[in-house]
Amino acid sequence: MSAPLNLRDLERIAGGLLEPGAQAYFAGGAHDEVCLAENEAAWARRKLLPRVLVDVGALDTATTLLGTAVTMPAGIAPTAQHGLAHPDAEAATARAAAAAGVLYCASTMSTLPVERIGAAGSGPRWFQLYIQRDRAATLELVARARAAGFTALVLTVDTPVAGVRERDARVGAAAARQTFGNLGYSGSGDALGAYVAGLFDPSVTWDDLSWLRAAAGMPLVLKGIMTAADARLACEHGADAVWVSNHGGRQLDRTPATADVLEEVAGAAAGRAEVYVDGGIRRGLDVVTALALGARAVFVGRPVLYALACDGQAGVTLALEMLRAELRNAMALLGAPSVADVRRSHVI
Amino acid sequence: MSAPLNLRDLERIAGGLLEPGAQAYFAGGAHDEVCLAENEAAWARRKLLPRVLVDVGALDTATTLLGTAVTMPAGIAPTAQHGLAHPDAEAATARAAAAAGVLYCASTMSTLPVERIGAAGSGPRWFQLYIQRDRAATLELVARARAAGFTALVLTVDTPVAGVRERDARVGAAAARQTFGNLGYSGSGDALGAYVAGLFDPSVTWDDLSWLRAAAGMPLVLKGIMTAADARLACEHGADAVWVSNHGGRQLDRTPATADVLEEVAGAAAGRAEVYVDGGIRRGLDVVTALALGARAVFVGRPVLYALACDGQAGVTLALEMLRAELRNAMALLGAPSVADVRRSHVI
Amino acid sequence: MSAPLNLRDLERIAGGLLEPGAQAYFAGGAHDEVCLAENEAAWARRKLLPRVLVDVGALDTATTLLGTAVTMPAGIAPTAQHGLAHPDAEAATARAAAAAGVLYCASTMSTLPVERIGAAGSGPRWFQLYIQRDRAATLELVARARAAGFTALVLTVDTPVAGVRERDARVGAAAARQTFGNLGYSGSGDALGAYVAGLFDPSVTWDDLSWLRAAAGMPLVLKGIMTAADARLACEHGADAVWVSNHGGRQLDRTPATADVLEEVAGAAAGRAEVYVDGGIRRGLDVVTALALGARAVFVGRPVLYALACDGQAGVTLALEMLRAELRNAMALLGAPSVADVRRSHVI
Amino acid sequence: MSAPLNLRDLERIAGGLLEPGAQAYFAGGAHDEVCLAENEAAWARRKLLPRVLVDVGALDTATTLLGTAVTMPAGIAPTAQHGLAHPDAEAATARAAAAAGVLYCASTMSTLPVERIGAAGSGPRWFQLYIQRDRAATLELVARARAAGFTALVLTVDTPVAGVRERDARVGAAAARQTFGNLGYSGSGDALGAYVAGLFDPSVTWDDLSWLRAAAGMPLVLKGIMTAADARLACEHGADAVWVSNHGGRQLDRTPATADVLEEVAGAAAGRAEVYVDGGIRRGLDVVTALALGARAVFVGRPVLYALACDGQAGVTLALEMLRAELRNAMALLGAPSVADVRRSHVI
Repeated sequence: MSAPLNLRDLERIAGGLLEPGAQAYFAGGAHDEVCLAENEAAWARRKLLPRVLVDVGALDTATTLLGTAVTMPAGIAPTAQHGLAHPDAEAATARAAAAAGVLYCASTMSTLPVERIGAAGSGPRWFQLYIQRDRAATLELVARARAAGFTALVLTVDTPVAGVRERDARVGAAAARQTFGNLGYSGSGDALGAYVAGLFDPSVTWDDLSWLRAAAGMPLVLKGIMTAADARLACEHGADAVWVSNHGGRQLDRTPATADVLEEVAGAAAGRAEVYVDGGIRRGLDVVTALALGARAVFVGRPVLYALACDGQAGVTLALEMLRAELRNAMALLGAPSVADVRRSHVI
Repeated sequence: MSAPLNLRDLERIAGGLLEPGAQAYFAGGAHDEVCLAENEAAWARRKLLPRVLVDVGALDTATTLLGTAVTMPAGIAPTAQHGLAHPDAEAATARAAAAAGVLYCASTMSTLPVERIGAAGSGPRWFQLYIQRDRAATLELVARARAAGFTALVLTVDTPVAGVRERDARVGAAAARQTFGNLGYSGSGDALGAYVAGLFDPSVTWDDLSWLRAAAGMPLVLKGIMTAADARLACEHGADAVWVSNHGGRQLDRTPATADVLEEVAGAAAGRAEVYVDGGIRRGLDVVTALALGARAVFVGRPVLYALACDGQAGVTLALEMLRAELRNAMALLGAPSVADVRRSHVI
Repeated sequence: MSAPLNLRDLERIAGGLLEPGAQAYFAGGAHDEVCLAENEAAWARRKLLPRVLVDVGALDTATTLLGTAVTMPAGIAPTAQHGLAHPDAEAATARAAAAAGVLYCASTMSTLPVERIGAAGSGPRWFQLYIQRDRAATLELVARARAAGFTALVLTVDTPVAGVRERDARVGAAAARQTFGNLGYSGSGDALGAYVAGLFDPSVTWDDLSWLRAAAGMPLVLKGIMTAADARLACEHGADAVWVSNHGGRQLDRTPATADVLEEVAGAAAGRAEVYVDGGIRRGLDVVTALALGARAVFVGRPVLYALACDGQAGVTLALEMLRAELRNAMALLGAPSVADVRRSHVI
Repeated sequence: MSAPLNLRDLERIAGGLLEPGAQAYFAGGAHDEVCLAENEAAWARRKLLPRVLVDVGALDTATTLLGTAVTMPAGIAPTAQHGLAHPDAEAATARAAAAAGVLYCASTMSTLPVERIGAAGSGPRWFQLYIQRDRAATLELVARARAAGFTALVLTVDTPVAGVRERDARVGAAAARQTFGNLGYSGSGDALGAYVAGLFDPSVTWDDLSWLRAAAGMPLVLKGIMTAADARLACEHGADAVWVSNHGGRQLDRTPATADVLEEVAGAAAGRAEVYVDGGIRRGLDVVTALALGARAVFVGRPVLYALACDGQAGVTLALEMLRAELRNAMALLGAPSVADVRRSHVI
C-alpha cells in the first residue's frame, strides 16, 4: 500500500496489525451490522452545494464546546480499551489530542485509569460515564474524573443492556484478556458480559439526572439521543448538550444513521443545548455536512483506534491532521471561511 | 461453521442436512421468488428509533392471542410436512412449542395426523384449514382438530389454486415421497399437484364463512389477507383475527412484502379483530417492527423447519429461545419494557 | 438445462441455437440498452395485491381486440425476419398463433411475403406498416395485406429514422444475408441501413393519417405512442387503437419503460381507442399488471422469436401455452375470474 | 476491440495508450470520486419522451453561443495539458474544432501558449481564466488571449483552492514533468501544487468582476456555478453566461451532478444570461437532455482528451462527429427537428 492519504487508509493498515479479536471488537456492530454500514453511507449520500466568489483567503476552523476552545469542530469520541490497539493506550491518544488542540472524551471503559489519562495531556477533556447499580461507586468515578482535570460529563444513555455483537462471537474476540483501569477489572472477555450486565443499571430514567447533575459539579452531556422527543426531554432535564449517536451501530441495529436524524434532533435542541454527533465520520466532507445539519461538533471513534494501532500517538496526530486538512479544503470549496459560515443551504 | 448464533445460522446448517428436494420445497417461492426475497428485506428496510432513559429493568414479553396466554408475541406458522425435516416431524415441533409457552399452528398438510400432534404437547395450539370440495370431509377434519385440543381455526384464504414453484421442478423435488397424515395421502410428489387441485375448492367465497363458523365452534382466523379491503370484509364476516400473509412468497409472486402492507391492513381491522403477520421474520428486530406496525403477534415458518432439521425438538427450542432473546434485547434498547410499550413511533 | 418452464428458459435455450448475429439482432437495443433492460424490470417492480375468497372456479381469459375474438389478451408483436430464427419463418408463427386463438401481428419486415403468412393460418391477424417515401408502394402493400386476410393496420410511428444498435456492429450482425419478402429485398445487412433509410419516410406527420385511413379500409392502430399528448392526438386523428411501445428499446434509448407510461397513456385514450402495450412482457404476472394499468391486451415480441428458434411452430405453441397458464394462475390468485375483473386496485 | 462506436470506446482505447500518470490525471476526481461517477450517471437516469409523427426530414443542429454561430450545441470544455495526450497538444484540438464548426474553450493551463492555439485554427474560440494574485499578470494573459482571436472570457470560479485528487498520489502522477505554456512553467508535478496555490488568488469575490469585465473587453462567462443563488448573483454582476459545472468532479466531492442542478440554475438565469453545462456528457442523449433542462449548450472535457490520445486531430474530429451523429439521431427520435424544438416536456 502506498502512503496513507486518508482515514480509511489507516483503517486498512490497522486491519493488518490488530489481533483478529481486537479488530472484530473495534470494527463490529450489532446483529446484522445494518446500522454500522448506514452510518458511513448516510454522510456520503448527502450532496454539498458550493458557493463561489467568497473570500476564503483566511480560513478558521476553531470553535468552542461548552465554552472550551478547540482548534476544530471534531473531537475524539469515547471508545473502550485503547490498550488493545497500542501499548501506550489512552495516554497516547490524550497526548495527540492535546497537541492538536482537539477535545478528547475518555471512556469509562478505558484500559488506563482516568488519572493516568488526565496526566498524559493538558488538552480539553471530557469523561464518559455509565450509571452503575452502585450509585456511590458511580459518583466516586465522577469525582476521580473531576480531579483528573476532566471538565464535562458525557452520560451514555443508549446502553441499558449491551448490544449483541455476533462478530465478536464468530472470531472468538471475547476470549482475549480485557482490562478496564477505571473499574479495576481484568480478566477474560468471556466473563465480561455478565460482569458488565451486573455493573450497569438498566433502570435509570430521566429522574436520575437531577441527582447526577447536582453531584457532578460539571456540565452534563447526554450521548445516545436519536429522537427529537428525547432531545426535548434532555433539554427539559437540564442537559447542557445532546450528543446524537447510535453507539457506532453497536447497540440497536437498524436504527437510522445519525446523519439521517441529526437535523431533526438538532432542531429540537436548538437554542437550549449544544448538539454533537458521531457515527461514520471519515472525511472532512462529513464534518461540514454535520455542521450544516445543525451539529456544533462531530466526534470520531474507530478511526482514532485504527490510527493508534498504526503508530501510537503519532498515528493519532496524523489522523487528526488528515481530518483537519480535509475540513479546511471542504470549507474553502464550500465558500465558508469559518465554522459559523457553514449553513444549512450548503447541504441538500 | 461456528456455533449458531441466530436463525439464519440454523438455515445454513440445515441447508447441509436436508435432502435437496426437501430443501427446495421448504426454501422456494413462486415464479421468480421476488416476493420471497422481499419478505425478508422489507423488515430490514424499516428503521427503529430507540427511546432512552426508560426503566427496562423488568422486561415482559408475554401477551395473549385470542385470549390464550403465550410467553411471547411470536408463534409457529403452519408449514407442511415436518417429516421432511426430521423423523419426529410435527411432534417435535409441538413439544418444543409447548415447553416454550409459544403458540403452535399446525398445518392441514402435516406429516403426522392432527391427533398425534395434539397428543405431543399441551401448549397453546391452533389448526390451519383448507376448505375442501367435500364439505363433509372438511368438517370432519375440523372436528378431529377440536377433539385433539386445537382451540382456533386458521383458514387459509390465499390458495384457491396452488402457486407455481419452479424451483421444485428444477431440482426434481416433486419426485420425493410425500405423506399427509390428515388426508391419508402418501405417494410421490409427482401426482401431488393434481391430487391437491382436486381436493381443495377454488370456488370458496365470503359467503362460506358463516357455515364454517357455525360448524367449527371455535374462533376463526383468516390467513392470507393482504389488503385493507379484505380485512374489512373479514371483520364484517365475523373473523376473530386477520393474519397478514402472502404464504411466504409461495403463491402470487410480486405481492408486496407483508411488512409493507401490515400497517394498512392492521388499521382496517383495528378494534374489531386481532392482527397477525408472517413472512420473512428472522430477527427479534422484525418482531418489534411488526408490533409497532400494528400486529399483535408474528408467526415464523421456515426457520422452525430449519431448526427441526438441525436438531429436532432441541433445535426448535433453540430457535425459539434465540428469537426470544433477540426480542428482549430489542425491547430493552427501544425503551419498551412490555409488548404493549412498543409503539408506532418506534418505527420509521 | 432442465426442461423449459417459462419464457426465459426458452430465451436461454435459443441463445445456444441462434447464430451470434441473429442473436444480437433479436436481443439488442439502442445505444446503452438502458431502455431494453428497463422494459423488463419495470413490470417486476410493480406489486400485485391479491383479493381473497372470490370464486375462481371458472376462469376465462378470452377477450376481443377491435371486435376480433381472441382466447387471451396477449398477442404476437410484429418482429422482423423470423427466418433468422427458423426456416419455417413467419409461417410457423402464424400456424401456432392460429391454433392458439391468439392474434398475430405480422411485420412489414418479415422474411416471408405477406401472402405466404396469410396462407399459413386462418387465425386473427393484423399487419404492421411503415409509410414509405413512395406512397403508392405503401398502399400496394396495404392492399396485399388486406387480400391476405389481415384485418387491421398497425402503423409504426416511432421510427422516422432507425435506432442505433451498437450490439449489431460489435458482433458483425449486419454482415449476415437479410431477406425481406414484402419488399423484395435480399442482400447483406451492411447495405440494409441505407436501403431502409431510403425506403421509409421521416417526414410523415399526423396529417398523413387521414389519407392512410381512407385508403386502408380497415381499422388503424398507432404503434409507438409513449405520451398522453400523442395518445390524445391519435384519438383526434381517428386511430382505433393506441399501442404503447418504445420498439422494444430499439429506437430511442432512455425512454421510460412502457410499464411506466402505460397508465397515463391509457387514461388519455380511455373510451376513445383501445390500448395495447408491448415491451418486456415475460410472465403472466406482466400481463395482469398491464391489464390493471389500462391495457386491453399485451403483445409479445422477442420471446416468440426465441420459441421459434427452439422448436419452430411447436416452440411458439409452447410459449403461448406457458404464458396462458401463467395468466390463468395469476388471475386465480388475484381473485379475478375474467379479464374484465382485473382492476386498477390489483396493482400498486 | 472492434472499431470505436462511441465516446466510451475512445476512452477505453485511450486507457491503453496514455501513461498511467496522465491517465490518472485526466480520469480522476476529488476524494472518493462520488461526484465524478454521479456526473455521468445522472444524465442516464433522466428519461426521454419521444413525440411521434413530427416531420424530421430536415434536421438542423446549429445554434449560436453569445452570438457566435456554431454547428452544434456542444463545445469543447477547457482542460489542462493536452500535451500529455498527444504531441500536437492543443493545436490538434483547435484544428479539429475549427473544422467541425464547434466552439473550443482553451484552458489557462494548456500545454501550448495561447498564441499557438489561436494560430492553429480559425474556428470559434473562448479563453478560460483564473484570477491570479498578480492582477497585472492576469490582465496581460487576457490581452494575449484577445490578441490571439479568443472572443469571450470564461472565468473559473470553483477553484479558490485546488481539489484533492488522491488518485494522482496513488499512481505517482505528480512526478511527471508538466508544462504550462501560458504561465511559462515547466517542472515536475511534485512542485506544481505549491506553485499553483501561490499563483491563484483564493480571496477573489463578486466585487472583482467589474474590474475584470472593464479590462477584458469581451463577454464574460462564469464557469463553476452550482446554485440558483450564485446564478442570480452572476446575472446581477453582469455575467453574459452562466456555466453549470463542478469541475468534472475534481473540486468538491459530493456536489450534485450537474444534470441534477441544471434546471434550477437555468431557471434563475433565464432571460438574463446564457446557460451552459459540462460534466459527464458522453452521449447525444445527454446533449438533448441538457437542452431540455435549460442549457443552451453543453461542453465536453475528458472525451476530447481521450480522442486526442487515440489519434490526435483526427481523433478529436471523430469524437465530435460521433457526438453530432448521436445528437441528430436523438433529435429525430424525439421529434425535434431543430435545437429550439427540444422542450422541457421531452424529459421526465
